Amino acid sequence: MEYYEDMAVGDVTEYGSKTMTKAEIIEFATKYDPQPFHVDEEAAKGTMFGGLAASGWHTAAVCMRLLVDGVLRDQASMGAAGVDELRWKRPVRPGDTISVRVEVLEKEPDPNDPSRGRVRSKLTGINQDGDAVISWEGLGLVERRDSAHGEAQ
Amino acid sequence: MEYYEDMAVGDVTEYGSKTMTKAEIIEFATKYDPQPFHVDEEAAKGTMFGGLAASGWHTAAVCMRLLVDGVLRDQASMGAAGVDELRWKRPVRPGDTISVRVEVLEKEPDPNDPSRGRVRSKLTGINQDGDAVISWEGLGLVERRDSAHGEAQ
Repeated sequence: MEYYEDMAVGDVTEYGSKTMTKAEIIEFATKYDPQPFHVDEEAAKGTMFGGLAASGWHTAAVCMRLLVDGVLRDQASMGAAGVDELRWKRPVRPGDTISVRVEVLEKEPDPNDPSRGRVRSKLTGINQDGDAVISWEGLGLVERRDSAHGEAQ
Repeated sequence: MEYYEDMAVGDVTEYGSKTMTKAEIIEFATKYDPQPFHVDEEAAKGTMFGGLAASGWHTAAVCMRLLVDGVLRDQASMGAAGVDELRWKRPVRPGDTISVRVEVLEKEPDPNDPSRGRVRSKLTGINQDGDAVISWEGLGLVERRDSAHGEAQ
């Protein structure tokens, strides 16, 4: 289990991957983001995307899944307050394969809760060509080892 | 159709609503955010959430759907570059009903593309008790009316 103390500013890890299918792109967007360029392959050709592209929120959700599988399952994560500077950098197309890279930017003890620390990390979603498709800075909360040990005493 | 010229800083609009069911919360999180507090009602009781709560990305996606239905269908939207300061402010529980409020914060012509403008808007997702559950600042791109008319000439 990775605790707050185990994380160091500058740590970079890479995880993945997930291939986005046309059916999944349309299914997600039909529920949550039914704009023509996300749900209708023909109509999408006449838009600024020039063809079907995944909802940016779908791309974010897929990156979250890669983060859970690659990082959070083995981390004493206590959730996140939010994310800053989420940017959709490039369309994600059917057949694109996404992986994620996570870099620890900053860490500090939580001044309001001694049981945990705050960790700011930059997540970048990268396609099969090595191009960034999305990025954000996550504001994670991670349990401190001392706190976890304390509970057992 | 609402163009860039029709939007004014300070405009506030409210839309909604969508009730989050337990089945939808578990279905979304099983695919995209399978942490115990989002997928397992029993396990969630022992976490900082004290019970099942929607993935923050699910809450964001639901707000996006309300935004599409309430705003974007009638707006000359050209997508968004991203969002800033996304914050999960309060857990969303099964049975919670979410609506959204959108306030226009800033607008300016896109210096790189005369056909469109940049509009920064604050979206707040609000539950049935009137409490904010999520907020973000969206960086939207909206077509200019002059540009749309120009195309037809």
